[in-house]
Amino acid sequence: MIAAQYLGDSKFGIADSVPVAPKAGEVRLDVGYVGICGTDMHIYHGAMDKRVAPKETTGHEASGIVREVGEGVTDVKVGDRVVVRPLDYCGDCPACDAGHSHICHNLKFMGVDSVGAFQSSWTVKARTIHKLPDTIDLRQGALIEPLAVACHDISMARVKAGEHVVVLGGGPIGQLVAAVAKAEGADVVISEINADRRAFAEANGIKAVDPLNQDLVGYVNAWTGTKGADVVFEVSGVQPAVDVMTEIAAVRGRICIVAIYPATAPPKVNLFKFFWRELELVGARVYEAADFEKAIDLVSSGKVDIDKFITSEFDLTSIDEAFHTLATSPVGMKTVVKCGA
Amino acid sequence: MIAAQYLGDSKFGIADSVPVAPKAGEVRLDVGYVGICGTDMHIYHGAMDKRVAPKETTGHEASGIVREVGEGVTDVKVGDRVVVRPLDYCGDCPACDAGHSHICHNLKFMGVDSVGAFQSSWTVKARTIHKLPDTIDLRQGALIEPLAVACHDISMARVKAGEHVVVLGGGPIGQLVAAVAKAEGADVVISEINADRRAFAEANGIKAVDPLNQDLVGYVNAWTGTKGADVVFEVSGVQPAVDVMTEIAAVRGRICIVAIYPATAPPKVNLFKFFWRELELVGARVYEAADFEKAIDLVSSGKVDIDKFITSEFDLTSIDEAFHTLATSPVGMKTVVKCGA
Ligand SMILES: [Zn+2]
Ligand SMILES: [Zn+2]
Ligand SMILES: [Zn+2]
Ligand SMILES: [Zn+2]
Repeated sequence: MIAAQYLGDSKFGIADSVPVAPKAGEVRLDVGYVGICGTDMHIYHGAMDKRVAPKETTGHEASGIVREVGEGVTDVKVGDRVVVRPLDYCGDCPACDAGHSHICHNLKFMGVDSVGAFQSSWTVKARTIHKLPDTIDLRQGALIEPLAVACHDISMARVKAGEHVVVLGGGPIGQLVAAVAKAEGADVVISEINADRRAFAEANGIKAVDPLNQDLVGYVNAWTGTKGADVVFEVSGVQPAVDVMTEIAAVRGRICIVAIYPATAPPKVNLFKFFWRELELVGARVYEAADFEKAIDLVSSGKVDIDKFITSEFDLTSIDEAFHTLATSPVGMKTVVKCGA
Repeated sequence: MIAAQYLGDSKFGIADSVPVAPKAGEVRLDVGYVGICGTDMHIYHGAMDKRVAPKETTGHEASGIVREVGEGVTDVKVGDRVVVRPLDYCGDCPACDAGHSHICHNLKFMGVDSVGAFQSSWTVKARTIHKLPDTIDLRQGALIEPLAVACHDISMARVKAGEHVVVLGGGPIGQLVAAVAKAEGADVVISEINADRRAFAEANGIKAVDPLNQDLVGYVNAWTGTKGADVVFEVSGVQPAVDVMTEIAAVRGRICIVAIYPATAPPKVNLFKFFWRELELVGARVYEAADFEKAIDLVSSGKVDIDKFITSEFDLTSIDEAFHTLATSPVGMKTVVKCGA
């Protein structure tokens, strides 16, 4: 078998490796496909060198087939086609005690804080596994993790059928959030400066606005009869989006923060508007088990056409080229890496 | 009868006036007591001259006795001892349609946007009236409005018994929020730089921290076993409080914005922490009918000892002195103006 290794300095290599036998409570997968996400790109660019040392195998958006199960594993069996929820929690902190293990105080994100999926074989805790139905192939399975992110965002923002939803930012996660909101029966607009991404949204039946050349506030007022948006997702991470999010939200509107802001350079937020319209802001991080099940159901039922989101594919042996291509021409939505199974 | 008039330029005068006969759906009160609040002080200082023209009679924290009822008023009768919920909504905007008339798009705040209570007799819509039980006198009644603000804050933040609650800012509203949280069974800390206000909190059985000379983050971590505060109320309106509110909140903690920030100079907010700990921020503005009923119940049952909060009293004829005193030596909690009934 082989494993990709982050070598530092925008470089991935491929090394021979040996399968890791599963310990008690673990399973070993033959990896199918692994998606590349923004976090992986940050690692590639060296922005996370404090968390990811050179020679680490990264990757966390994985599907695979179970090949070995460790002692005491009863709910997963050899041959199961699965995806991995890459969260390793402590089980013993105030967040875990309160039932929020996905934001454990000591959370290890697998593929970042521990060994990841860009390899032929990956050994993980059985509690991270979700089974795929026959209706979902392994290539589609690699998209379950980012789709679960979107499902978590929708859940945290409590989106309901018939609501007016604005998504600020039309990258992969923003588009997936829009797709899930639409599947829930919401009326959805994406605000996005990139024309290709607006076209992608429109091809999926979602309205798109160019905030640089259109008046988004006027658009939302006209669209909602001056009510404003019931829910706003901030997925862009830029100050102009933070400025507009409070202008377009309805009385008691919910604003969901999906983008990751730098803790050292916090944006300015119009707290007056939170008071004036009794707005709510809620942060959403990763996902819970139910979000994975929801994502699997949305793909299986056809409510989200996930194939559209896979816009390029590379073999594991070409992973350096995959990252280089994404870094130099960041078009398309999701790139998947075929790892063999 | 007489009426106080805001004359502009930090000056109130007293003028003769005539009672206004109630129209259909209205009632006329003999005013009992009226509290002076921060909004009144802003008016006094000229900061709201665009909303409040000279010669207007202001005041909105009122108790009184019903003396006349207009046509069609059936649920209020002459002789009733009452308080006024000073909100005049349009009934026909998206917020009113959604059941949130207290934050109506066209809300008129009585005593600011229309004639107020600093007079012998006040004529108001019957729908603004809440009856006082025999257990509450008219002087205490003047505190029901600010206590209803605190009840609304507690409701919006969904405070539950046993939770750890931090109130940032120990002015009148902050102290009332703390008192209601305590009445709900929460464990409460006030963070306040003024020693007199800390002493006031402690005299009411509430813990107090000096954020300039004590490590509030360390205090909260030790107090909660590293969990953090379940609920934080930001009542101070200053950047250091906005900085610390995200540092002391637990995973999934709720931060309630009570302070009114300038829309033109928004503070910096650590949105990273909202993502990282899935924090929630919610704005709270004025109150709903249920908050007035809750406030009346808390005073009537003795769960909140409201007399402690009344720290000075002036006659209506001395209203200019009352404002001048508050402006030059802002000690104590609430000042009430005795209007006669
Ligand atoms: Zn990812
Ligand atoms: Zn934990
Ligand atoms: Zn007030
Ligand atoms: Zn209205």
